Amino acid sequence: MDILLTAPEPELLCIFGTGDLGRSLGQRLLQSGYKVVYGSRRPHSCGPVPQGAQVMSHTAAAQSASVVFICIQREHYGFLEQLAPQLKRKVLVDVSNNLRKNLYPEANAEYLQRLTPEAYVVKAFNTLSAWALQNGPSDSNRQVYLCGNSTEAKEAVTEIATRLGFSVQDRGSLSAARELEDFPLQLFPLWRLPLRLAFGLTAFFFFYLLTRDVIYTYATQKKDISFRIMVSLANKVFPIVSLIMLALCYLPGVIAAVFQLYRGTKYRRFPDWLDRWMLCRKQLGLLALAFAFLHVLYTLIIPIRYYVRYKIMKENQTSELDTTIAWRSDSYYSMGILGFGLYVLLGITSLPSVSNALSWREFSFIQSKLGYLTLFFCTFHTYLYGWDMFLRSSYYKWYTPPGYMLSLLVPSVVLVLKLLLLLPCVDRSLTRIRQGWERTEPQDDSQKSLIT
Amino acid sequence: MDILLTAPEPELLCIFGTGDLGRSLGQRLLQSGYKVVYGSRRPHSCGPVPQGAQVMSHTAAAQSASVVFICIQREHYGFLEQLAPQLKRKVLVDVSNNLRKNLYPEANAEYLQRLTPEAYVVKAFNTLSAWALQNGPSDSNRQVYLCGNSTEAKEAVTEIATRLGFSVQDRGSLSAARELEDFPLQLFPLWRLPLRLAFGLTAFFFFYLLTRDVIYTYATQKKDISFRIMVSLANKVFPIVSLIMLALCYLPGVIAAVFQLYRGTKYRRFPDWLDRWMLCRKQLGLLALAFAFLHVLYTLIIPIRYYVRYKIMKENQTSELDTTIAWRSDSYYSMGILGFGLYVLLGITSLPSVSNALSWREFSFIQSKLGYLTLFFCTFHTYLYGWDMFLRSSYYKWYTPPGYMLSLLVPSVVLVLKLLLLLPCVDRSLTRIRQGWERTEPQDDSQKSLIT
Amino acid sequence: MDILLTAPEPELLCIFGTGDLGRSLGQRLLQSGYKVVYGSRRPHSCGPVPQGAQVMSHTAAAQSASVVFICIQREHYGFLEQLAPQLKRKVLVDVSNNLRKNLYPEANAEYLQRLTPEAYVVKAFNTLSAWALQNGPSDSNRQVYLCGNSTEAKEAVTEIATRLGFSVQDRGSLSAARELEDFPLQLFPLWRLPLRLAFGLTAFFFFYLLTRDVIYTYATQKKDISFRIMVSLANKVFPIVSLIMLALCYLPGVIAAVFQLYRGTKYRRFPDWLDRWMLCRKQLGLLALAFAFLHVLYTLIIPIRYYVRYKIMKENQTSELDTTIAWRSDSYYSMGILGFGLYVLLGITSLPSVSNALSWREFSFIQSKLGYLTLFFCTFHTYLYGWDMFLRSSYYKWYTPPGYMLSLLVPSVVLVLKLLLLLPCVDRSLTRIRQGWERTEPQDDSQKSLIT
Repeated sequence: MDILLTAPEPELLCIFGTGDLGRSLGQRLLQSGYKVVYGSRRPHSCGPVPQGAQVMSHTAAAQSASVVFICIQREHYGFLEQLAPQLKRKVLVDVSNNLRKNLYPEANAEYLQRLTPEAYVVKAFNTLSAWALQNGPSDSNRQVYLCGNSTEAKEAVTEIATRLGFSVQDRGSLSAARELEDFPLQLFPLWRLPLRLAFGLTAFFFFYLLTRDVIYTYATQKKDISFRIMVSLANKVFPIVSLIMLALCYLPGVIAAVFQLYRGTKYRRFPDWLDRWMLCRKQLGLLALAFAFLHVLYTLIIPIRYYVRYKIMKENQTSELDTTIAWRSDSYYSMGILGFGLYVLLGITSLPSVSNALSWREFSFIQSKLGYLTLFFCTFHTYLYGWDMFLRSSYYKWYTPPGYMLSLLVPSVVLVLKLLLLLPCVDRSLTRIRQGWERTEPQDDSQKSLIT
Repeated sequence: MDILLTAPEPELLCIFGTGDLGRSLGQRLLQSGYKVVYGSRRPHSCGPVPQGAQVMSHTAAAQSASVVFICIQREHYGFLEQLAPQLKRKVLVDVSNNLRKNLYPEANAEYLQRLTPEAYVVKAFNTLSAWALQNGPSDSNRQVYLCGNSTEAKEAVTEIATRLGFSVQDRGSLSAARELEDFPLQLFPLWRLPLRLAFGLTAFFFFYLLTRDVIYTYATQKKDISFRIMVSLANKVFPIVSLIMLALCYLPGVIAAVFQLYRGTKYRRFPDWLDRWMLCRKQLGLLALAFAFLHVLYTLIIPIRYYVRYKIMKENQTSELDTTIAWRSDSYYSMGILGFGLYVLLGITSLPSVSNALSWREFSFIQSKLGYLTLFFCTFHTYLYGWDMFLRSSYYKWYTPPGYMLSLLVPSVVLVLKLLLLLPCVDRSLTRIRQGWERTEPQDDSQKSLIT
Repeated sequence: MDILLTAPEPELLCIFGTGDLGRSLGQRLLQSGYKVVYGSRRPHSCGPVPQGAQVMSHTAAAQSASVVFICIQREHYGFLEQLAPQLKRKVLVDVSNNLRKNLYPEANAEYLQRLTPEAYVVKAFNTLSAWALQNGPSDSNRQVYLCGNSTEAKEAVTEIATRLGFSVQDRGSLSAARELEDFPLQLFPLWRLPLRLAFGLTAFFFFYLLTRDVIYTYATQKKDISFRIMVSLANKVFPIVSLIMLALCYLPGVIAAVFQLYRGTKYRRFPDWLDRWMLCRKQLGLLALAFAFLHVLYTLIIPIRYYVRYKIMKENQTSELDTTIAWRSDSYYSMGILGFGLYVLLGITSLPSVSNALSWREFSFIQSKLGYLTLFFCTFHTYLYGWDMFLRSSYYKWYTPPGYMLSLLVPSVVLVLKLLLLLPCVDRSLTRIRQGWERTEPQDDSQKSLIT
């Protein structure tokens, strides 16, 4: 302890490899007050290294420091096996990444540990960009994840990362290395399915409505209203997709409950498709919110549009004020606004820092209870929009139903199913199953919660 | 250290209790690569356990592992007292929760420590839902809080939680156990008062305005304008409640300053009601923002409403453009927008991750300086709305003032008081008091900051 | 370990200094269950201390506890040198701050360590407000940063801070003390340049447009349209400033790429002005978003403005519907909405908790790819607004171009440069340079990535 008290002598760190990664890292370490020595196969012809660093043979470099950064591509790890004696009891920091997932049967860091069984391998720094390694932390490059089997080795690396300005998160033993190596390769894995779904729904409803509105008008009246694509059509597609996707957030929960009721146990795994669906509910919901946001903006600019102003001017309003229409249109807007307000609330509580601050009871209250309320408001908003439209045959152009009717299918099913699940008798069974009760079990339920 | 270097032999963990909790936890531990042994009173008839786990007597199970999860309800802890010799120097993980707060005089984990004084009790995992224990981390179930008196025991539990995929936050010694046990029971404790207030104000102003607008019109002119409830009335209630609640955020700070000035010291505690009020200012503000958000949306849909379009068509605009009205109406909108913009800024800086990134000087600059500016803009917006309305007797239907006047009371008082506190002489006294000076003290102020 | 198992005897902590800071801290420590002893030069006449605390001479107090909080101003540290023998192997917690940056050549904590070389100095608690020290954690006062050369000493302080309810972040060795001491003094350092720029641009365009619109109209037609300042003029200034600032976010990246291409290496530092510019891109972008937000709100209230309603009433719409105008105006609104939607998305991913959850590949995808798309939408939106306005000489009042044209300069340059950089031949060179290749280097590029 006492050794560290006075401003310590700059510590010497070793880097194997003088490629870009090694060079960037070395530069940063030098700037942070460390001394750096490079280990190279050809110490005298290895290309430029940052000013102030030394270059030695691998053996000499390894012996001079207690921490060695391995800035070499995995394919060239082989030679480290011969260096194993020199690397004994050294901390080896594996910073490598692969070009794609599952390229090798084992993680790079685990491979390195196998080659040098008596070294203390720590996987770290690989989730940072080269830019961050050279220039220090910035957004989304602030956190260093590390894992390894030796606590002391992890502490040594933590000390270095902290001095470089990063904050460190320990991810456990070296078996987590694969996860860390896959992390920088990922590009929104949980967003893919929801994004594809959103694009699919958007494309479908766009062409469906294009046919019903623009093409139908042109075919029957020879009138070109294609200018309506930009706003009027978009503002039909967005709310439809938003409502369907919101309902699709809640459908898997209902299906899961039906599965549990049918099977009479919660301990059997759900089918894979349901699991995957449930995992991306948050992403589905956020995309639905994005579409709702666009719908709101598209709606609010209606009165400043040229076309609308033109139409208003042309209208000859002679009829009396119809209070039913006034009630209906105002309720329609109110439901929409309240639904959107709750939608935004759901979105805000999805922010990592907000959801972390909530207890799960609070989180599930918002995401489940308020979520269903949102779905109800938005569905009701759409029903009010439709009103008695479904009765009038003129709306079924070319025998197709208007888009809003299609959008009501899924949410109506979800709401009805949810209501059924809330019936006291069903709800009681479900609660018991979720508390661990199993229908096929011979034992009495009341004993389950006792110690056994 | 060396023992851990090669991929370690799966560690054996013990779980007492084969109820739902024990079963869920065991399943997850097995999936994460641990070996699990259950301790049961009746090892041969204890109901199903996850595949791969063993069941033994409590004594045998406890002896086989160094970490024991206690998945038993507190009422049944009694028998652990006899097992105390076997549990000596074991890490006992208490995961229990109670059905409601203050059910027992001491926390479950402290009770457990009392029963087994030589075991190392760690409170952990209790803030997670059973779902998260079985299926791994998800939003708001990512953080494991733990506390205990032994650092080594906490490290052992941290290692396990990390491997299960959770991130761990150490909350100190076992005396924090009660807090952790209360956490999953809480449902927005700080939001209750503000929510009740919001509901109360909303209900009051709704009926007040309903009487003044709809019922008055019906009583005096026999005209049914009840359709105005959905939007026009709502859009009067929301801004009124929002403004009052925003002012109520800043009122306690002003009252506290008056208290400190009057008492001449900052070291005496404020009355309880003021303390409680000050603690929920953030929640008051966020609710006020929510109401302001609804007000904005309700305002923006005005021109697309059926009723408004109808009225515009009926109007015969013959008067000249009145630039005073143009100035006033545009200033009114401008103030509203700027106020709302600052409102949103205040909301964003309330997000945990944003406020954590700010120094308290920055945070108090935004929340205090910009907060008062917001209040000023919104109050001014309301004054511009009213204009000379307060002079015209026709607005005092049934001798009641319009709603907006009532809403101006609290904010005007707050702003005037704040201005008084900013007067140089008052401000100087207050600053000195807040730096520790006390009026009743005989000592000279200048000596206070010196070492003594 | 065993000592800690039973509820531990309250630990005794020592505080040097009975000023406001020492008193506040002592009160809080007492409330959290510690025993507190004050060290004072004049133990019998040192003014009031919190109830329950003792006051002794410095020597006696230091000997009684193993942790000593130094609540003394730096100017009075001198006497601690004589106490060095008594403070040997004690943990000294330096909580001091300075009135401004760079007041002293070394950090207060480093100075303290120099005075007492055998004590374990830990810098901590200085980033909290006095209010938080007295009343416990609150927003932006939840995190205690600490640094020091002794791990054990930091652990002891961590334990105390945790029991006081704070969460602790270790910032490494004592050399980080200066950074911690500067933290509470900072007031949005990275926001200054962007804020000044925003004010400058706003002022310039306000007066530019005031001259062109209001003054020109008055000078040529003797008509006072000054009422247009509040909304119409503001709604021209805001989008112009927003677009320019958004473009200024992306300009430094383009300039940096040009530098790298020209120099043929990424290892030479950029000029200082470029470095500083690149560091405040996030702030530039967020300010641009704020202006865009105001622009959206100002646009949406257009139809409810008195002036607009008045104008609409006066208009005699007799012309036919012009579908080109309809297409153009709707595209204009659509581009604006989509651009704003992406803008908001960029803003959300700038939230610390969101950007921390993204891998840097995801983060750079959003901030770079979607960022340029945002810039493109917003620029296109502005071009659609202008349409053929640039051809008509009547728009060049007093020979000045309309404001929107000026706003298009920077974004157009950025977009054209970015397109050039995306040309395959340029892109290839740039990618190689960013992977570490250097043009002036004699070595073959293909060897660079091998171990050397």
